[in-house]
Amino acid sequence: MGSTSDPISNGVLAGEPRAIARAISVVENDPAGAADLIARLYPKTGRAYVIGVTGAPGVGKSTLVDRLTTVIRRSAHTVGIIAVDPTSPFTGGAVLGDRVRMNAHAADEGVFIRSMATRGHLGGLASATSDAILVLDAAGKDIVIIETVGVGQDEVEIVGTADISLVVLVPGAGDDVQAMKAGIMEIADVFVVNKADREGADHVVQTIAASLMLKMYGPNDWRPPIVKTEASNGVGIDELWNEIGRFRQRPANARERRRRTRESTRLRRLLSQRLIERVERDLPAGEFDRLVDAVAAREIDPYAAVDRLMRGAQQS
Amino acid sequence: MGSTSDPISNGVLAGEPRAIARAISVVENDPAGAADLIARLYPKTGRAYVIGVTGAPGVGKSTLVDRLTTVIRRSAHTVGIIAVDPTSPFTGGAVLGDRVRMNAHAADEGVFIRSMATRGHLGGLASATSDAILVLDAAGKDIVIIETVGVGQDEVEIVGTADISLVVLVPGAGDDVQAMKAGIMEIADVFVVNKADREGADHVVQTIAASLMLKMYGPNDWRPPIVKTEASNGVGIDELWNEIGRFRQRPANARERRRRTRESTRLRRLLSQRLIERVERDLPAGEFDRLVDAVAAREIDPYAAVDRLMRGAQQS
Repeated sequence: MGSTSDPISNGVLAGEPRAIARAISVVENDPAGAADLIARLYPKTGRAYVIGVTGAPGVGKSTLVDRLTTVIRRSAHTVGIIAVDPTSPFTGGAVLGDRVRMNAHAADEGVFIRSMATRGHLGGLASATSDAILVLDAAGKDIVIIETVGVGQDEVEIVGTADISLVVLVPGAGDDVQAMKAGIMEIADVFVVNKADREGADHVVQTIAASLMLKMYGPNDWRPPIVKTEASNGVGIDELWNEIGRFRQRPANARERRRRTRESTRLRRLLSQRLIERVERDLPAGEFDRLVDAVAAREIDPYAAVDRLMRGAQQS
Repeated sequence: MGSTSDPISNGVLAGEPRAIARAISVVENDPAGAADLIARLYPKTGRAYVIGVTGAPGVGKSTLVDRLTTVIRRSAHTVGIIAVDPTSPFTGGAVLGDRVRMNAHAADEGVFIRSMATRGHLGGLASATSDAILVLDAAGKDIVIIETVGVGQDEVEIVGTADISLVVLVPGAGDDVQAMKAGIMEIADVFVVNKADREGADHVVQTIAASLMLKMYGPNDWRPPIVKTEASNGVGIDELWNEIGRFRQRPANARERRRRTRESTRLRRLLSQRLIERVERDLPAGEFDRLVDAVAAREIDPYAAVDRLMRGAQQS
């Protein structure tokens, strides 16, 4: 697809950090450019192993990812990290905090780190994140870690369609039951109980284990292990990496099924975006706003308004 | 729109709890039925004041909503509550916990409470929640409270398009900066620092205040107040209700702008769902799956695959 005379895609394929950074900016900010870039990179993707990490704010995900990266680098694997960061200009302090923390790997050419902010428009973040994973994959990173602040549908989708999903919990987060309400329990391939030196760690482990007991597993099904870590002291990280390795050695068809789900979700999302763009382009100027006004004035209900928009889209 | 001989819509308009419950089940599970039902109810909506409440898991949102409901009921307003609950069968315990807690209002006919689970498909939860708000509005509830576990785009959208948005934080949630990474700071009309008897409450208040200092406000702009509460002791709830009342008294055009954004977001979301349904219906059987396979096999990139789907959709 397309010639490869493009300097950004060439730079990405050569693993150049500056080109990777520019490519991720393209997929974040320029949908048309993203299509072109991904067309160039896509044939070289599919090799990286994608690790998704999620959990509520404050469970220590950044530190965990940092320490896990140190362990992964010992075996000479290269690592790309995408921190999906809902921080805005309004709360700029948080970004700085993360960057400082991640600086442990700043001098390591085998590690590429990038924060991506959540986007306002529907599905925008999930699309940009999928594309950024492809960029790091094409750039030859062996492992891509994608870290999100969990709970939302988009974030769960991002992490849940990684090759392996880690869900991070901590003891004493007010209310264990509440912490498990995050809608992220189902997507866990490995549970991490971080800050395990804190009081209540065993209680969290038992609560997770009790929840897992309620699930039905077939004889060959993977049962999510629970790993206790103290990321800030480097405790438990080797064991976590071992569990990731164990999961990775499952039969190829299990991994393929996950990747197929990922591609399907992604295609559906892209299709939805493109369809709505086309309708908005094809509608008479002001038509959408006029219908919004009519709905707000209770002259027409939202479903009937969408029917009218659909008819307009069909005729064009 | 449509005759009103339908027993569910008639029951909703008469404020009957069983009809309200059935109507919400319809908007959750039956898209076609939802369109019909909302068409019947829509002309009677637009009167309820919608309060959105969000915050990370464990900050005490349920208890806060419970106590706020008690205060609202003192002034004879009726209340409808929708708890958007990402709990799944896998973690069934949490639902039970909430229900027990909410039971304080079980005998009060002026309060209707319903949990809604997050849905798998894109935008499904946000649509169902919007429709459920309309049901409670049509049923004559004066105040509708919508409580979500924040952070995700969908959840932020739901709460951010309410008439007023409350963001709940707590002291000592591991890391204040982390707690503010939720992407929910921008949507706050009122900040609530709950569990304010805990150490560090003033620090949280100061951190929020410092963040607000960074924002530019015009002379007539609303500046989000910060209210300290101890929901489980009933402390600060009257003050919170006063602030909600103060916000509500802003000029009508500010409120209208918010509602217009809500209708616009909703219309766009509905349109997107209907468009993708139409494409999937019109595609030749198996075409979508064949393209997913081709993408997974790296024979075609995702953007090119969507182009092909779009061409198919255009011709049909």
